[in-house]
Amino acid sequence: MKIITQSLATDSAAYLQGYLREDGNATAPAIIIVPGGSYTHIPEQQAEDLALAWSARGFQAFFLRYSFTGEKHPLLPAPIVELAQSVATIRQHAEEWRIDSDRITIAGFSVGGHIVALFNDLWHDAKINTLAGTQPEQVKPNAVILGYPVISPKLGFPTDAQVLASWTDDVDSIAADELVNDQNVPTFIWGTAADPLVPVQNAMSYAQASLAHHVDTDLHIFHHGPHGLALANHVTAWKPGTDLPHVAHWMDLANEWLNELN
Amino acid sequence: MKIITQSLATDSAAYLQGYLREDGNATAPAIIIVPGGSYTHIPEQQAEDLALAWSARGFQAFFLRYSFTGEKHPLLPAPIVELAQSVATIRQHAEEWRIDSDRITIAGFSVGGHIVALFNDLWHDAKINTLAGTQPEQVKPNAVILGYPVISPKLGFPTDAQVLASWTDDVDSIAADELVNDQNVPTFIWGTAADPLVPVQNAMSYAQASLAHHVDTDLHIFHHGPHGLALANHVTAWKPGTDLPHVAHWMDLANEWLNELN
Repeated sequence: MKIITQSLATDSAAYLQGYLREDGNATAPAIIIVPGGSYTHIPEQQAEDLALAWSARGFQAFFLRYSFTGEKHPLLPAPIVELAQSVATIRQHAEEWRIDSDRITIAGFSVGGHIVALFNDLWHDAKINTLAGTQPEQVKPNAVILGYPVISPKLGFPTDAQVLASWTDDVDSIAADELVNDQNVPTFIWGTAADPLVPVQNAMSYAQASLAHHVDTDLHIFHHGPHGLALANHVTAWKPGTDLPHVAHWMDLANEWLNELN
Repeated sequence: MKIITQSLATDSAAYLQGYLREDGNATAPAIIIVPGGSYTHIPEQQAEDLALAWSARGFQAFFLRYSFTGEKHPLLPAPIVELAQSVATIRQHAEEWRIDSDRITIAGFSVGGHIVALFNDLWHDAKINTLAGTQPEQVKPNAVILGYPVISPKLGFPTDAQVLASWTDDVDSIAADELVNDQNVPTFIWGTAADPLVPVQNAMSYAQASLAHHVDTDLHIFHHGPHGLALANHVTAWKPGTDLPHVAHWMDLANEWLNELN
């Protein structure tokens, strides 16, 4: 494996970190992990653990360090633009990095799920592509995975108006469930019914919209478990009650679902 | 194993068929399969296959042959009453059949899911218990599993008004999502997004209501697959495209969920 770091733009702190398998000349699917962290930071070790888990399943895996609220005001849509640039960058380097350009999955967790859900709705949006300096066909993802996603500030997170003001000055423009459309790509969604931080209604509402638009949708809501479970196994467990074998099935279910798309 | 058949009432064709393990003196959990069949019949071999799959996981397993539309008019609530009598019968025979009376699960499929979803909402209802000759504490289930359930005629099935008239003369009384309440028991729901017969909105709407009432809820929507998958493996496959390993995970997910309730 080779670990690489790729900056995305001269005016931003955003970068892609890649974990590239060097196991031959065949191309592999790619995945971009978009971690959580309340838009103020990212848990880098957890992001790496998620990337390595997909690497172990044969993916060229990346995580995105996107811009935070301390760096742009209001923050959005900067992380969405950076995600567009990430997909375009991977396509540009597909031959060098031995990636199948038609199998690029984006996996977002918590507020990373918010970024990915919005990007799923907006990858073809003219404003996003202008800001990113890209064309829609360069940035279209092939599949999307959302783990315990934040979907809309109207669904219970964040509860602090000042925090929300640091995200956006136009709440409707970041209500991801309301922006789902027929161009959304296949979407796998998981979360826990008991999530005490980001209500499960976020995941449910996005799934409802995806189903209504006949988007290929796989949805898994597990009864128990707190917010932020990542792999939900001992590797990413960060407090008692976060190593949960029932929830940890999401990873194999998602991988199996991806294989059924191809 | 001993196979038994138990009639439920002198004025009905309904009966319970039981597959009783005889592997010692310890008690086992029980499960009652409530099969589908459009309220006109039940697929007995499929019902037996489902019962045997749970038997293989250590359950005392039963299926319910409930009344059909040709036998009562309108049919409902007769099958709900028969399900109440089934749970009471199992509790009455708990010692003889070596069953743990506090671990009785009901698993309904298609219109069997409709019966089970309504019973989940109504197990404590005075009218149902009067008709069944039971007390609520005798019939309360400990957990409920719904596979590709019919939930409400308002959600796309049945489409034929004459069929609906054979079910009920009061549609509101059989809209199971609208009757969910705080006394519903833990509920596992699964279905396929692509179901062409019973829209997945049925499963989604019941799950939404369960989550809103803080019922212990596990929900799994698989992207592909037709209606009526039962075990979704080669045992119950009934046409090409019904042996689906991704969907077949529902069984282990449900069993794992049940184990986490105890």
